[in-house]
Amino acid sequence: MAIELFYWPTIQGRGEFVRLLLEEAGADYVDVARTKGGMAAMMRILEGKGRGALPFAPPFVKVDDVIVSQTANVLAYLAPTLGLVPDDEALRAEASQIQLTIADFVGEIHDTHHPIAGSLYYEDQKKEAKRRARDFVKERMPKYLAWLEDVLARNEKSKGRWLVGRELTYVDLSAFQVVEGLRFAFPNAMARMERRISRLVALRDRVAKRPRIAAYLGSKRRLPFNQEGIFRSYPELDAAAPKNR
Amino acid sequence: MAIELFYWPTIQGRGEFVRLLLEEAGADYVDVARTKGGMAAMMRILEGKGRGALPFAPPFVKVDDVIVSQTANVLAYLAPTLGLVPDDEALRAEASQIQLTIADFVGEIHDTHHPIAGSLYYEDQKKEAKRRARDFVKERMPKYLAWLEDVLARNEKSKGRWLVGRELTYVDLSAFQVVEGLRFAFPNAMARMERRISRLVALRDRVAKRPRIAAYLGSKRRLPFNQEGIFRSYPELDAAAPKNR
Repeated sequence: MAIELFYWPTIQGRGEFVRLLLEEAGADYVDVARTKGGMAAMMRILEGKGRGALPFAPPFVKVDDVIVSQTANVLAYLAPTLGLVPDDEALRAEASQIQLTIADFVGEIHDTHHPIAGSLYYEDQKKEAKRRARDFVKERMPKYLAWLEDVLARNEKSKGRWLVGRELTYVDLSAFQVVEGLRFAFPNAMARMERRISRLVALRDRVAKRPRIAAYLGSKRRLPFNQEGIFRSYPELDAAAPKNR
Repeated sequence: MAIELFYWPTIQGRGEFVRLLLEEAGADYVDVARTKGGMAAMMRILEGKGRGALPFAPPFVKVDDVIVSQTANVLAYLAPTLGLVPDDEALRAEASQIQLTIADFVGEIHDTHHPIAGSLYYEDQKKEAKRRARDFVKERMPKYLAWLEDVLARNEKSKGRWLVGRELTYVDLSAFQVVEGLRFAFPNAMARMERRISRLVALRDRVAKRPRIAAYLGSKRRLPFNQEGIFRSYPELDAAAPKNR
């Protein structure tokens, strides 16, 4: 039976972490809200009209009548059957702690353009966004990226190629997505960071070359980044462009 | 072997969700940073000088040489052995999705007093905090609390007494903590909400009466709420006091 994914149909957003997992695994899945009548089906579940667990927000999946929500939880639930996390319990816990840290990072990235309220327009919190983004670019983004680089460096099992264990896991796919998103949203800040995170950049390249991921990225199933998702291109929130010398 | 918990020694913070689990289970544990030399031991691990997984931030635990971080992950890792989550895989996933939604809620609570940067003083982001807290009290807090109430109402297995399955789980302990914290931080807003969330308030009372939790709350191990944690008492961020009529 196909895995049903429920997520907003016009953005990458948090759903993209699940899409990447399903694509890398070659899983049989339906991106429900992008099919006819799919948005209504998603809203029915969010309004509590379905059976099973009540999601607070998308993304969520439905597998054999079980509803699972919260991105990191969805990934941890699906990855074992899809072969994208090791069997070892301690390594699974490590994958989960990295994914949850990525989730925190993603939350902070979102809040650079929405520091006051998700329900308000960017234009109505632009001043606060500039202030928050300044701290993000200077302190938080380098801290998270350096931490991911350290995790790679410490993972002797994969010689620093993957974040957890010997092989690619779902966490590596999420790290790929974060690098892609940051390049889109903060190109100047990322250009400065990248030589300090060479392992992470190499991981990004390794993921992009996986045959199924490459096919996905070249397909219409991969939505482009836009100004409605988590990663948005507001040059005023990025670091200054490097000076020509 | 005792479970070692690592968390900031002077605040409840995110560590409190783990402390409540350990206390309810009657587990053999050490709150390491509150012992002599414990802060230095915690910092060594955060600086990458220990073995095993590298935590991004406290809380984390050490169990038989395995390091596990990220609050929801720590709880999901410990709860099975401590008997505080059902065996069923779907129910475990449901517990995790609720806990992660509580984690998001806690993050938003924190950001009411730190909407710009965790590294700045509250006084340096007070104006933005007031704006963010206004939206939080009006939109987000009611939304999260109503969702928890709905989850309780839907859980026929426990007749609405517990959030997941038939018996108390770690998620109920976390829901208790959130109600306590909101009463401290937003007493006016909570007073208005409470009659609309009677099941959640009843759950809070039920948890408070558990013998081990009651003993813990009356002990010195339970740190008081203060102005350094997640839940802080800033009356200017709360809703207005109800008018005498």
